[in-house]
Amino acid sequence: MSKKVKAFGEVMMRLDAPGHQTLEQTNTLQTMYKGTGVNILSGLCRLKHSTSIITKLPDNSLGKAAISAIQSNGISVDDIVIGGNYIGKYFLENGFGPRPTKVIYSNRKESSFCTSNIKEYNLSKILADTDLLHICGIGLAISDITRNNVIQTAKIACSLGVKVAFDCNFRPKLWDNDIEEARKYYEEILPYVDICFMTEKDAQYILGYETNAKGSKNQINEVMPKVANRFKVGIIAGTIRDETTNHTGTLQGFMLVDGKIVYSDTLAYETLDRIGGGDGFTSGILHGVLKGLPANETVAFAVGAGVLAHTIHGDIPRSTERDIWQFLSDNRISIER
Amino acid sequence: MSKKVKAFGEVMMRLDAPGHQTLEQTNTLQTMYKGTGVNILSGLCRLKHSTSIITKLPDNSLGKAAISAIQSNGISVDDIVIGGNYIGKYFLENGFGPRPTKVIYSNRKESSFCTSNIKEYNLSKILADTDLLHICGIGLAISDITRNNVIQTAKIACSLGVKVAFDCNFRPKLWDNDIEEARKYYEEILPYVDICFMTEKDAQYILGYETNAKGSKNQINEVMPKVANRFKVGIIAGTIRDETTNHTGTLQGFMLVDGKIVYSDTLAYETLDRIGGGDGFTSGILHGVLKGLPANETVAFAVGAGVLAHTIHGDIPRSTERDIWQFLSDNRISIER
Amino acid sequence: MSKKVKAFGEVMMRLDAPGHQTLEQTNTLQTMYKGTGVNILSGLCRLKHSTSIITKLPDNSLGKAAISAIQSNGISVDDIVIGGNYIGKYFLENGFGPRPTKVIYSNRKESSFCTSNIKEYNLSKILADTDLLHICGIGLAISDITRNNVIQTAKIACSLGVKVAFDCNFRPKLWDNDIEEARKYYEEILPYVDICFMTEKDAQYILGYETNAKGSKNQINEVMPKVANRFKVGIIAGTIRDETTNHTGTLQGFMLVDGKIVYSDTLAYETLDRIGGGDGFTSGILHGVLKGLPANETVAFAVGAGVLAHTIHGDIPRSTERDIWQFLSDNRISIER
Amino acid sequence: MSKKVKAFGEVMMRLDAPGHQTLEQTNTLQTMYKGTGVNILSGLCRLKHSTSIITKLPDNSLGKAAISAIQSNGISVDDIVIGGNYIGKYFLENGFGPRPTKVIYSNRKESSFCTSNIKEYNLSKILADTDLLHICGIGLAISDITRNNVIQTAKIACSLGVKVAFDCNFRPKLWDNDIEEARKYYEEILPYVDICFMTEKDAQYILGYETNAKGSKNQINEVMPKVANRFKVGIIAGTIRDETTNHTGTLQGFMLVDGKIVYSDTLAYETLDRIGGGDGFTSGILHGVLKGLPANETVAFAVGAGVLAHTIHGDIPRSTERDIWQFLSDNRISIER
Amino acid sequence: MSKKVKAFGEVMMRLDAPGHQTLEQTNTLQTMYKGTGVNILSGLCRLKHSTSIITKLPDNSLGKAAISAIQSNGISVDDIVIGGNYIGKYFLENGFGPRPTKVIYSNRKESSFCTSNIKEYNLSKILADTDLLHICGIGLAISDITRNNVIQTAKIACSLGVKVAFDCNFRPKLWDNDIEEARKYYEEILPYVDICFMTEKDAQYILGYETNAKGSKNQINEVMPKVANRFKVGIIAGTIRDETTNHTGTLQGFMLVDGKIVYSDTLAYETLDRIGGGDGFTSGILHGVLKGLPANETVAFAVGAGVLAHTIHGDIPRSTERDIWQFLSDNRISIER
Amino acid sequence: MSKKVKAFGEVMMRLDAPGHQTLEQTNTLQTMYKGTGVNILSGLCRLKHSTSIITKLPDNSLGKAAISAIQSNGISVDDIVIGGNYIGKYFLENGFGPRPTKVIYSNRKESSFCTSNIKEYNLSKILADTDLLHICGIGLAISDITRNNVIQTAKIACSLGVKVAFDCNFRPKLWDNDIEEARKYYEEILPYVDICFMTEKDAQYILGYETNAKGSKNQINEVMPKVANRFKVGIIAGTIRDETTNHTGTLQGFMLVDGKIVYSDTLAYETLDRIGGGDGFTSGILHGVLKGLPANETVAFAVGAGVLAHTIHGDIPRSTERDIWQFLSDNRISIER
Repeated sequence: MSKKVKAFGEVMMRLDAPGHQTLEQTNTLQTMYKGTGVNILSGLCRLKHSTSIITKLPDNSLGKAAISAIQSNGISVDDIVIGGNYIGKYFLENGFGPRPTKVIYSNRKESSFCTSNIKEYNLSKILADTDLLHICGIGLAISDITRNNVIQTAKIACSLGVKVAFDCNFRPKLWDNDIEEARKYYEEILPYVDICFMTEKDAQYILGYETNAKGSKNQINEVMPKVANRFKVGIIAGTIRDETTNHTGTLQGFMLVDGKIVYSDTLAYETLDRIGGGDGFTSGILHGVLKGLPANETVAFAVGAGVLAHTIHGDIPRSTERDIWQFLSDNRISIER
Repeated sequence: MSKKVKAFGEVMMRLDAPGHQTLEQTNTLQTMYKGTGVNILSGLCRLKHSTSIITKLPDNSLGKAAISAIQSNGISVDDIVIGGNYIGKYFLENGFGPRPTKVIYSNRKESSFCTSNIKEYNLSKILADTDLLHICGIGLAISDITRNNVIQTAKIACSLGVKVAFDCNFRPKLWDNDIEEARKYYEEILPYVDICFMTEKDAQYILGYETNAKGSKNQINEVMPKVANRFKVGIIAGTIRDETTNHTGTLQGFMLVDGKIVYSDTLAYETLDRIGGGDGFTSGILHGVLKGLPANETVAFAVGAGVLAHTIHGDIPRSTERDIWQFLSDNRISIER
Repeated sequence: MSKKVKAFGEVMMRLDAPGHQTLEQTNTLQTMYKGTGVNILSGLCRLKHSTSIITKLPDNSLGKAAISAIQSNGISVDDIVIGGNYIGKYFLENGFGPRPTKVIYSNRKESSFCTSNIKEYNLSKILADTDLLHICGIGLAISDITRNNVIQTAKIACSLGVKVAFDCNFRPKLWDNDIEEARKYYEEILPYVDICFMTEKDAQYILGYETNAKGSKNQINEVMPKVANRFKVGIIAGTIRDETTNHTGTLQGFMLVDGKIVYSDTLAYETLDRIGGGDGFTSGILHGVLKGLPANETVAFAVGAGVLAHTIHGDIPRSTERDIWQFLSDNRISIER
Repeated sequence: MSKKVKAFGEVMMRLDAPGHQTLEQTNTLQTMYKGTGVNILSGLCRLKHSTSIITKLPDNSLGKAAISAIQSNGISVDDIVIGGNYIGKYFLENGFGPRPTKVIYSNRKESSFCTSNIKEYNLSKILADTDLLHICGIGLAISDITRNNVIQTAKIACSLGVKVAFDCNFRPKLWDNDIEEARKYYEEILPYVDICFMTEKDAQYILGYETNAKGSKNQINEVMPKVANRFKVGIIAGTIRDETTNHTGTLQGFMLVDGKIVYSDTLAYETLDRIGGGDGFTSGILHGVLKGLPANETVAFAVGAGVLAHTIHGDIPRSTERDIWQFLSDNRISIER
Repeated sequence: MSKKVKAFGEVMMRLDAPGHQTLEQTNTLQTMYKGTGVNILSGLCRLKHSTSIITKLPDNSLGKAAISAIQSNGISVDDIVIGGNYIGKYFLENGFGPRPTKVIYSNRKESSFCTSNIKEYNLSKILADTDLLHICGIGLAISDITRNNVIQTAKIACSLGVKVAFDCNFRPKLWDNDIEEARKYYEEILPYVDICFMTEKDAQYILGYETNAKGSKNQINEVMPKVANRFKVGIIAGTIRDETTNHTGTLQGFMLVDGKIVYSDTLAYETLDRIGGGDGFTSGILHGVLKGLPANETVAFAVGAGVLAHTIHGDIPRSTERDIWQFLSDNRISIER
Repeated sequence: MSKKVKAFGEVMMRLDAPGHQTLEQTNTLQTMYKGTGVNILSGLCRLKHSTSIITKLPDNSLGKAAISAIQSNGISVDDIVIGGNYIGKYFLENGFGPRPTKVIYSNRKESSFCTSNIKEYNLSKILADTDLLHICGIGLAISDITRNNVIQTAKIACSLGVKVAFDCNFRPKLWDNDIEEARKYYEEILPYVDICFMTEKDAQYILGYETNAKGSKNQINEVMPKVANRFKVGIIAGTIRDETTNHTGTLQGFMLVDGKIVYSDTLAYETLDRIGGGDGFTSGILHGVLKGLPANETVAFAVGAGVLAHTIHGDIPRSTERDIWQFLSDNRISIER
């Protein structure tokens, strides 16, 4: 039987003010349970992969609600450790036009996951039935504990022969803009990574690759082979996003495999929900890799998955293979009866 | 006193996932009761005509809810037969951007209407006080029963001197793309039709009129007189729709009367709700015919009614004569205090 | 590793008018996905058993929504067959005081499950990893197809050494009050049953055991041993329900094991949601059996589970072991901070 | 064909704070369109009578909304005059336990109806096809205009041979507790009334009949024949209500016909919505009168209709004949599948 | 301690049909409490000024709800007179595309405010602690009472040395298009005004200044100095609005100070809510004046405040100084974490 | 002018699952902002006292929302310190019948208030215009910081001649049931208290007064004078609550003044919302004290205020003096038109 895809990462509770109201205007909030790991595994479940999330959640009604939501996407909860005090949360006030979206964190550092010890997870057992492990780079930034957990997890996975997918997800503010500090840890983890999600900007800012090339494509062509070469990362993938308005734009995917870079077509997108759009692309790439699709097919599929993920409310990609290929085909439909 | 406009057709329950959510994401559905017949009669009620729907509904709370909704539009329910097991239903998952809208039928063929026998309706009595009868072409496709009912109804109406308006509403999928089969029944019913709603594509695909003309207008000018001539249909009307995006575009109406074709201006539209937009145009044409307006005025009014119907949530046209003429006038207003 | 509990049964979509409104009054419905099998397995998941539902669902957005809801309860969907046209549905108009609750079925007999062939399920494989199989008696009544499926399933499970739990769930109206007809099939299935859920009224009406004993308890004491003896059913369990008002009453559980009957205390209950209350008791009994608890402890636990299930909105029991023992203990709490 | 039942009365917009919230707590209101006349006619429509409301509503979106709501109940709107400035409104803050319900009127005296001239209604034509006309006594109190309209309407109906049903609906506050003033106008209208809805308290307070009898029943027996005799009112009906709590109690109906008083059984009721509960009883009595049922059957039916009206949200009685007889029968049901 | 900004004006209850539904389609309304005075003071409260509204509200639950809403914005309610019968209301049916928004007033002229006598407010005491008083020009139009109140208030404020800000807010329909009548009263109040909000169209239509200049800017340059000069108004401010679609456009502010006119940049805007957009600009200008900012900074800030006010649901500006300067800066952000 | 009542205490965000749903069942939460201090001041605002809350809230959208909610009740926010990271929160899952309500805290100890330093509040200035200061005993338990803040505040108030009202609010779990530890701090604060809210159980458990008296009243009569005497507390007040069901019961108030104990009548109550019911009684007592009402009138008023507070959704008492006296009078009303 096929092995599992797992992700090591935080599951957060998201609480949205409805529509475009401010938190001051409303007394009703909409809740979701999400996180980079959950999002990507949810996408993979729709693509018929077997998945499991490795995380820690508290033993209370919010922990139960998170578990129920994770299960609803088809992700196994067998690897979740129960304990600690809090689920991490964020409140979201959706912007409009020039008014910015506002995110307010709650229990960010005190969450069950962020205060967990890596030994609680019994990774050697958990990873024994695993093909591919996804790790999100935000953990490198939150605290010493999470940084250590993330790096240890990558090392253990590597030592067990589990493929490691790593999403840079670099957020300068979480590092207090201290690039030097960040670079140190990104450089520490990359040698254990098999599949890396990264943009040309990440390569420049985090890893310090300088280039005089103009435009994203030329920069990608110049710096990505160097990154792949230095850290022995077999696959690097990412997107080139060109925003037309704050809810429309174009998306193109790229994928470096064995030193060669393949690009998808450039597709127009419309955004229903700003947060979490990139996780559709990631699940598309991982799908192609797991199925052994050729690189050009993989990146085409991934960018299709990414564009469709923009049309879904919430962070969770929900498209099936049929949905994605239908969208990429010549005869798109507007009503499916 | 003036006679009534009646429609023979199915009333369905529509259940929408709210906003752009998928059915998987929501536990709340919005309900409406609609159908081509109900929609058009509702439009005519707002234009101050006396109307009645001929249909069959079950004797349960959903049947009652449908009747209440039909009545709320001012349509008489005196001609509704009560019985059978089900009201037909469809669930609607509203698409977004490139993600298609999805429609899922329930009890389509088992509905009270679709399993009814034409004799249950006592048409000779029901049509005795009727000026104009509207029939929808979808009934030709659902099943042998509904096809027979639709054709019989047209014949009886014709024999009683009631004017027959027929909306082609051709849906290839319902015919399993068997054009030959469809053509046979469209050809059978058209001789009994006085007012036919049809596009130049219908004329080509269903009836087989070939043309080398370029553009909708030239094709209409070439094929519609042939259709009118062959089947002795006095009036043929329809729209030329040009979609700019999936919620904006332009609409132009045409109307053939006594062999002469009149066009309206081309108006821009914005769509609030994708489903049922064309029924506003249809009720506008029928209003002009019933009031004896000149063709150019009728088609202008109809296209105005059509554009306004796109701005209403749900299938039901809700504009009054004043609303429509105000919209068509030179001094449109944006706030009416 | 521990084996699984499975259930063979229909999953239905429930659509409720909110609060105590009639279907005519509202344009908003609340949806749930439920069924005796799903309810009981959900209860068992909360009690930390591994479960899987054996059913058939259509390949459309409603089928997906059902699967998502089933998964959210922790039930495996690996044994679900995808295909057919419809999910069965019922609309619910919640009564108030003397006004009755009204249930309207839709696609009852045309559902994917009710039109499925028993061979589609590959039961010999599905039941290979199964300890206990739950079967609901409603299937005996719906149609010849479902009756055959239910009986075949019981026989196959029995032949594979899987324990069979059977819930009589007798509804006279579904049998057109033809008791003779019903008895025939109940008598056919009972020899394959290990654990039977039944009331003293079922024993009298369905199986024809006459008794002059007064009161439920005396009747149970008289007839249940006869049933157990005749059909070689090891365990029979059920409740004595005494309604005080339409939302309060008392509940007592009984359990016959190896010919001996044990009763729980009589507990008061309050009802938040009328439908599906008994499934909490059933999951409590199965939990005791699976854990090898003594009969008196099992029936005490089950009636506690049953009372708590009455306090939950919807059909799904949601109590944990800790919740139930806490409720049964001397120091119940009203606020848990 | 059968003639119509009509009502002359105001249609108001009701705006409720949801649940038991105060108006200060909520930013969402629920709307309904109601009035004694509309309520009673709605009840009669469910009992299969043909009805029409005589009122006046403004030519704006609220007037249209009211018309749509009236139509949804099956009431004809052909006799509604369109014009004036306002629809009367009231805001309702639903009490809880000892906290009182609060009603705040808006545009009470400035409403289209309350400022209408009786000549606008063309009553001689409107009443020509009418069997029975219902008039509500509140109109006697609002203003000189409405008082005059109400009395004139009764006189015209009487002169045309239309049966007049009159509901006393005495509200001391509207008369500034000036009983003498009120009595004058009640005495002026009663000679034109055929069916009067009145309690023994009304007879004492408004009409000044003194009695030493103890208990409602004895007082009814003593004073009602005197009222009937003096004003030549053929039928007097009303209820004896005994409140146990603020949402439960018992209801008994009485009906004087040709000098003889008949009582119904005393039935328990539970209240879902405090406002408008008595209109179910009234429609039940009128149904019995219109169908020519014997007095004992009429009053039994009416009190059943009244109890069921208490179980419905909003003012509108929604029970069918089958619902009411089923409720009054020995085998009430709690779930109707 | 700093003095207060006060506003003399009506507070109305706004009742919206949700989304783009018509009032006929919905049974739920959203409520707000607003008015030019409340809106502007709310904006100033967010900008850290001390404010108070001078108005009259009824002593009932709606009056309380209004007071609670006013307080929630930080405005003092100490100067509100309690009494009278009604709060003024309007119902709003939000248009879509070419379908106009519809506003229906209720108790417009009968409201507590509009029927109040100017002596009830004890203005000499209320204005003693006041720096700046805002008056809205709509009061000039409603009735003789409100017109007199508005003019008297301006005169008293002027005599007490309180700065008067006056918003023309000219609505031809309220004056039955009688410009001559309107001009008389605008001319009467302007000599008491220190800061006037006015467009070049107001200057032409209301005050009769003719000009051959082309374009708003040239007209402003020509006529505004004349207005300022004639009526000795120190500051005149307003916006040039250019609508691209019905929810996008550009906004430019101007401000005449001591005879010199300063313009802001032209900024693009997107509209979330059509009603009340201009009050953000007004509060921005008053903020600059109260803080003694230079004119170019004031008008830049004001137009930024105006654009952000378009992005907020409801009439109330909610931006802080930080929000506005951030928006006007070079590095706008789209997500603020 | 009259001085202010202030409260030193935390303001929390409350997030409720709607109705009786569990947190797992819903994706919508209702929010409120509350706390013992805010609740009591809100009650006093409705009773026309001038109030201000002394607390600390974060500089983000949730802090703003809290401030808006506090202001909406009429409480001044001038004494609120802005800073820190979090507002304290709790999620509430409302129980039903025997199912317990569940409360889950979030950022309890990390909140802006709980991490604030007492020096940030500038108490000598803040308390200069204060008559009465309310302090809640929960602060004694949360952490060393809050305990120190609470005790320091009481001492400073005492030294400035401000009357101190203290609510014991003893929660054993917060003290890990370490009574000895708790007693130490309660004994430290009581000498600075003028008005103490306490039950006879508090006196026994926290302060260690033993008694053999039977029943609450006898115990109160025995121990309260000893408490008052020892700590020189002029006024002690509290309630005797007798729960009949989980939403009904009786309430009696007592008040010790100058060594003499006065009792109110025993009133029945019904509960709409379980949390925060006692704060209505407290605000009633403080109202009587501030107005100088006699003790018997004060305690009668307070228990009336308490019973009405049970009928309001949320924690905030909303009754006016008129509401409370009307409720306590002989002629209660059920509908106020």
